Amino acid sequence: MRVGVVGGGQLGRMLGLAGLPLGLEFVFLDPSPEAPAAAVGEHITAAFDEQGAIAELAARCDVVTYEFENVDVESLAAAAGDTPVYPPPGALATAQDRRNEKLAFEAAGIPVAPWQTVDSRDDLEAACRGIGLPLIVKTRRLGYDGKGQHRILAEADIPAAWEALAGVPLLAERLVAFDREVSVIGSRGADGTLACYSLTRNVHRDGILHTSCAPAADAGLQARAEAHLRALVERLDYRGTIAIEFFVAGGRLFGNEFAPRVHNSGHWTIEGAACSQFENHLRAICGLPAGDCRTRGHAGMLNLIGAMPAPAGVLALPDAHLHDYGKSPRPGRKLGHVTVVADSPEERDRRLTRLEGLIAAGTENRSL
Amino acid sequence: MRVGVVGGGQLGRMLGLAGLPLGLEFVFLDPSPEAPAAAVGEHITAAFDEQGAIAELAARCDVVTYEFENVDVESLAAAAGDTPVYPPPGALATAQDRRNEKLAFEAAGIPVAPWQTVDSRDDLEAACRGIGLPLIVKTRRLGYDGKGQHRILAEADIPAAWEALAGVPLLAERLVAFDREVSVIGSRGADGTLACYSLTRNVHRDGILHTSCAPAADAGLQARAEAHLRALVERLDYRGTIAIEFFVAGGRLFGNEFAPRVHNSGHWTIEGAACSQFENHLRAICGLPAGDCRTRGHAGMLNLIGAMPAPAGVLALPDAHLHDYGKSPRPGRKLGHVTVVADSPEERDRRLTRLEGLIAAGTENRSL
Repeated sequence: MRVGVVGGGQLGRMLGLAGLPLGLEFVFLDPSPEAPAAAVGEHITAAFDEQGAIAELAARCDVVTYEFENVDVESLAAAAGDTPVYPPPGALATAQDRRNEKLAFEAAGIPVAPWQTVDSRDDLEAACRGIGLPLIVKTRRLGYDGKGQHRILAEADIPAAWEALAGVPLLAERLVAFDREVSVIGSRGADGTLACYSLTRNVHRDGILHTSCAPAADAGLQARAEAHLRALVERLDYRGTIAIEFFVAGGRLFGNEFAPRVHNSGHWTIEGAACSQFENHLRAICGLPAGDCRTRGHAGMLNLIGAMPAPAGVLALPDAHLHDYGKSPRPGRKLGHVTVVADSPEERDRRLTRLEGLIAAGTENRSL
Repeated sequence: MRVGVVGGGQLGRMLGLAGLPLGLEFVFLDPSPEAPAAAVGEHITAAFDEQGAIAELAARCDVVTYEFENVDVESLAAAAGDTPVYPPPGALATAQDRRNEKLAFEAAGIPVAPWQTVDSRDDLEAACRGIGLPLIVKTRRLGYDGKGQHRILAEADIPAAWEALAGVPLLAERLVAFDREVSVIGSRGADGTLACYSLTRNVHRDGILHTSCAPAADAGLQARAEAHLRALVERLDYRGTIAIEFFVAGGRLFGNEFAPRVHNSGHWTIEGAACSQFENHLRAICGLPAGDCRTRGHAGMLNLIGAMPAPAGVLALPDAHLHDYGKSPRPGRKLGHVTVVADSPEERDRRLTRLEGLIAAGTENRSL
């Protein structure tokens, strides 16, 4: 079976690494001649919106999926023709617009912070009064890794926020004073069954995911997160791997956003779960039964951003797993990640701390 | 860093799958245009002994290794020029000739069954008298998966054995009435440290490995096997992953053969150990520290030979991991393997039994 993937970044690369052992073959569509996923499949080097590119991808494959979200959904669905596209393009369309995303959360009974859309400076001022401060204003479309966001802590911040973001549809929401951020990742199969991983605790730095640790929750929170995920995937008629990011505040979960794809906060599942989010995504879209989501020990993932550490230092840590995406270094760019696994959360945290020390001590542009 | 691999079969493919996350790149030399490893690296399609092929491989890589043993060692070493070759060609030369292999075992203090070389029918008759029956006579070179072997249970079997094997150097050895077969796999790094996996219990069928289960031994047997492995790798000045197959008879270990490469009986390490034999081989040959060999639960591997089972059935088993090598089916050909992992040996064995049932019930030429 041949899987077509829109996007050939690290998510595509890890899908390929998970899928080759299943006997799958891959074709990636990505404009970059240096797409990391090209190491594990064929590569169509073309812009996502290039006339005929998605049609070519679909024609060569049995199923199409995506690892990159900023694709025009209507052309994706149309160009795929008779080739099925999973997750369903409707779920992608919902995730692409923060308003639709909030409405989907609400329809699924998932609590969200107070929000409203903003299309003018008057709207923004009204939101500040209506929702109350502090709030965060975000572009409704095309935001990622903290880009396209501005915080308004006091009324004096309004002009700068408006200047930074005006010109595109926006959404303002109350800034949640959260205790922590968690995500739940699951994979829904062709028959509608949902396989769900342990809640993952995430720490962001400068708007980019820094670490993810799992398992991260008591049974009560896990059950509520799973129920939220189940309600959402049923409404979206979802198939494949999906992630919801939540804020935890006062023991309550607030839906922040969801990603209709494999997710950075689930990279720990490669070594920290019996079957990874990547393999489960492929199993789901290929009509195969879900793999076991059970955790193996306590996993912690650290993103490698902007520069790579010396591999020998990382690999000297016990049960440490390096994932080099094969990308050229650039400030702020996700170049790889490391997952450590341990028998206890304390030992996992010690290993993560050692890893952070290593990286702080001598990060340079090194790779094997 | 670019790794050149002589051979592009499933072992090369799994080396590539383990090495891409480390940031390694691969070039495989293999005569088959359908080499399984071509999915994870560049592929030089040439015969192993084709003039200039190994030199081209070496010139394009930082280090050369091999996953196929029947290569001319002298040309390998000469053609590699300044590019290092690991494991050292001397170890390969030793493994290629059963006489040298026995001598290496003996020099390392590893017990072996009584043996002698056979170059004539008179030699064979002398061996039958000297060693005693039953014995097994094998070609000294180029045997694999039970090929090039003949058992002599009674003197009446001598003519048939001689007819089947005459014409090449042979070796006769006493047939060990073993209780079980085990193998020990380890990886020796640039600094001489040896990382060693749990002993694996192996069951062969028709001379081909059928199942491998680990962990398989009490602490005493494990320690003796590790000591044997350590003695051998030190004598061979070894670097990389190595496997020794032993017979266990009356609680004693007898060295049967060793493989200077990643080994079929270590495939369980992909899911059943913290760091796989493939990753550890690459770490060793690239001068990186060894990864953790600690087992994760109880693993059982089953080879898929001649035909593939329906993937959906296999993947419905809990914690089952399919490895499809992407090869065309052919009777007796290793097409893939499945590893199951469980919390207890009993549950592992139940899952293996279910897997065998599945395969017996409906094996056909199926793949995804």
